[in-house]
Amino acid sequence: MSTIAIALHGGAGDRNRTTTTPQQEQDLCNGIADAMDAGYEILKNGGSSIEAIERAIMIMEERPCFNAGIGAALTEFGTVELDAGIMEGTNRNVGAIAGVQRIKSPIKAARYVMEHTPQVLLIGTRAEEFLSKAGLEMVEPEYFITEENQRLLEKILAEQQATLQQHTEKVVLGTVGVVALDSNGNLAAGNSTGGMMNKRSGRVGDTPIAGAGMYARNGVCAVAATGYGEYFIRTSAAHEVYAQVRYAHTDISTACNNVLADIQTLGGRGGLIALDANGNTTLPFTTSSMARGAINANGERIVELW
Amino acid sequence: MSTIAIALHGGAGDRNRTTTTPQQEQDLCNGIADAMDAGYEILKNGGSSIEAIERAIMIMEERPCFNAGIGAALTEFGTVELDAGIMEGTNRNVGAIAGVQRIKSPIKAARYVMEHTPQVLLIGTRAEEFLSKAGLEMVEPEYFITEENQRLLEKILAEQQATLQQHTEKVVLGTVGVVALDSNGNLAAGNSTGGMMNKRSGRVGDTPIAGAGMYARNGVCAVAATGYGEYFIRTSAAHEVYAQVRYAHTDISTACNNVLADIQTLGGRGGLIALDANGNTTLPFTTSSMARGAINANGERIVELW
Repeated sequence: MSTIAIALHGGAGDRNRTTTTPQQEQDLCNGIADAMDAGYEILKNGGSSIEAIERAIMIMEERPCFNAGIGAALTEFGTVELDAGIMEGTNRNVGAIAGVQRIKSPIKAARYVMEHTPQVLLIGTRAEEFLSKAGLEMVEPEYFITEENQRLLEKILAEQQATLQQHTEKVVLGTVGVVALDSNGNLAAGNSTGGMMNKRSGRVGDTPIAGAGMYARNGVCAVAATGYGEYFIRTSAAHEVYAQVRYAHTDISTACNNVLADIQTLGGRGGLIALDANGNTTLPFTTSSMARGAINANGERIVELW
Repeated sequence: MSTIAIALHGGAGDRNRTTTTPQQEQDLCNGIADAMDAGYEILKNGGSSIEAIERAIMIMEERPCFNAGIGAALTEFGTVELDAGIMEGTNRNVGAIAGVQRIKSPIKAARYVMEHTPQVLLIGTRAEEFLSKAGLEMVEPEYFITEENQRLLEKILAEQQATLQQHTEKVVLGTVGVVALDSNGNLAAGNSTGGMMNKRSGRVGDTPIAGAGMYARNGVCAVAATGYGEYFIRTSAAHEVYAQVRYAHTDISTACNNVLADIQTLGGRGGLIALDANGNTTLPFTTSSMARGAINANGERIVELW
């Protein structure tokens, strides 16, 4: 069998180890494992890295424990605004959507933009109208909203009110991302998210931005990011990993650590998942937790949270 | 006087030299010269690169000959959707807006996002509502629409209809961008655009995307891009120039040419303006024209179109 590999993240964040219930931990790890195994199965059967990524992310979008699709973080108004992006390393094609509220699977929409339009990034209600006409499944915005997130937002807003704080966004755990290498040597990367809890309506983070939240190029590497997105845009995090691997001949693991250290000097934290052209995987993070999983080129399998 | 430098573009595109009137050429060159001189004056007086960029871009946003602010390209529906972004090389702060219709100066709004919010990218009507409350000047969408652009769009739509073509976007000349180096050694880059003529409503190009349409880091370089934006996102064009200068020790001019050549292999064309930490400027393009100007570290001044 040719070299295949996959790595996933279910979001870097400052989860509290003592208050996280066994059930929460199990939901996250099961979500990662189920998505990973489904993606890996596609790769094993000779499917493309894009196919594997779409499938794995769609599974995580449907699990309320992740901040993507159902369970997405809520804006300051209690609404959802979803972002997703996908990139293939073959020809560096990209597709992405931002600020959508009714598209059932954001990652599927991102793939549609990549494969069926000359555009790379479509935003807002106009993107929804176009993609709805194109046949993508639409849902009511309430489809994505969980009671748990509504309670969390209420709590944040109450605290904000009580302390007369200015608007502050809270990083939520759970943005999802996948990188994969298929048996044809094609690398790809994808991400899907609801953004940050209590985020300013209209805010877009790094998730749908090629070069920031994801990057893929055959023969070099595929990278997906999670964390405080603004810092990943400012550092062009995913493309910076690529550039260090390609031009500074840094190994993938050191390159990811360098980028996270650089982000930390700016005041930001998060995580990266990456794999190189040989199927070596790395999954570093600078937060307390990052739900993650990988099956590398040697078939070694991990699923971890802390 | 410390080293200062500035470079501007007024959009790369396939302008036809035989049908361009002397008046059109003069408007473009005057616009570049006026914006450049205003920006340079700020730098000469010890002002910041951000201040110089904002001022220069605001001047071009007000000139209907450029595709930014007044004179912005129209969407498929005849509306305007404006994008702008700005980045400072000191701490890699970024501010950007996309898909706005009523903000009088998009570049001013991008700067506001950078300096007064924790966000980096705000989109659509929610961005407008927030920025309007923050005190930025709003106008009716018609403010940006010129009769010339309305006639051009009608012509494109009629051709599309006549030939039963699918929706095709036309690159328009005129996206504006500026890079500057101030007397404190601070590099910065900024862009403002209406996008492409007959663009799909909701489409966002590289202009507001740090890493794609612009990048700036002190001690390395500042870069701004123009052209078929999708290709500049797919290649992380501006950050790729930075990466080649930093990690492959390529000079700024070769790095820009490499990136434009790479984009051409993918099927895209456009232009880049860049300057390095020593105030060396470069303004290459792969289209027939790019309105452009520069005053480099030696005080050498150019304003050119072809």
